[in-house]
Amino acid sequence: MARPVNLEVRSRLLSIGRQVVHDRGFNGCGVQDITAAAEIPKGSFYNYFASKEDFAAEILEEYWTSIESRHGPIFYDARVKPLERIGQFFQALVLEHGEHEYTLGCLIGNLSLEMSNGSQQTRARLADVLARWEGLLASCLREAQQRRELPEERNAEELACVIVEAWEGAVMRGKVLQSGAPLQRFVSIVLPRLLE
Amino acid sequence: MARPVNLEVRSRLLSIGRQVVHDRGFNGCGVQDITAAAEIPKGSFYNYFASKEDFAAEILEEYWTSIESRHGPIFYDARVKPLERIGQFFQALVLEHGEHEYTLGCLIGNLSLEMSNGSQQTRARLADVLARWEGLLASCLREAQQRRELPEERNAEELACVIVEAWEGAVMRGKVLQSGAPLQRFVSIVLPRLLE
Repeated sequence: MARPVNLEVRSRLLSIGRQVVHDRGFNGCGVQDITAAAEIPKGSFYNYFASKEDFAAEILEEYWTSIESRHGPIFYDARVKPLERIGQFFQALVLEHGEHEYTLGCLIGNLSLEMSNGSQQTRARLADVLARWEGLLASCLREAQQRRELPEERNAEELACVIVEAWEGAVMRGKVLQSGAPLQRFVSIVLPRLLE
Repeated sequence: MARPVNLEVRSRLLSIGRQVVHDRGFNGCGVQDITAAAEIPKGSFYNYFASKEDFAAEILEEYWTSIESRHGPIFYDARVKPLERIGQFFQALVLEHGEHEYTLGCLIGNLSLEMSNGSQQTRARLADVLARWEGLLASCLREAQQRRELPEERNAEELACVIVEAWEGAVMRGKVLQSGAPLQRFVSIVLPRLLE
């Protein structure tokens, strides 16, 4: 039987539910909490998502797409040197984390640690999102190499991975300390050393 | 009324319960799962721990103490250069994570992302454990500076923080990929660049 689908409701579930999961963790909230926050009946959830894991994969996709649409364009800004674009990208993320006093962490990182040991579906989506993020960075790093701003012998793909990994660790620490200091340290110490 | 306390049972709850939480996450398991794994009645849990949060703080303490007792001595090994001690310490952790195919993550990192937004008690313990870890690293870095193996102008405390943060991000990524590659990248790329 075809189930009734309302795109406005689906979109509300994704955006409000994403906030609930980001704030309380995947296992720290139930479908009931998500539907209550979105003000829809609990049963309707399954008209839109096959399972809570399915929902997690969707909010991860939305989370990354939202970051990419807001902050991705800097990677193509020909007015800015490639390595500076990377610094500006992360500086913009620092400001966003500051809007929540650094307490939320990165949804990608949070679900990486909470779920990747238990849900193959989420793990695959996490790997995919991280690979796309690193693809953006790697192509910017290769541009820096073409312009001789980064030594040619550096492995751009590997460097992109290392940058994302160190960033995620900094955001994690920011969450524990409820402070932006680790994020600032990433921008002022780690990133310049990695990009030398 | 004084409650009966059996140190053997408490120790069993801590060691077996720690594995359960490490494997499934704090919110991914209940007190019932922990007591069932330790083969004690559920109600007895509260003879030993005031709450599940209290238990989380205790397993974090035990987790770090166990790492420190097994791998901490390298930091004082006068036969090894200070910066090499740091490399050896992390290489030993890479091997340990490999024993679980990199799927578990670091308990400190896992609980940082899962709990620090919801439990002040856990957050405080996490901050304390991380500070002690960094203290070990910082004192080793200062020794390297005294021996002129690390530039004097580097801030050893800040560098120690950055090292731990980047490591935690690498372990997180290893968990998503179920691979040791990010941990090896930390040892072969990030650490040498940070210690230059």
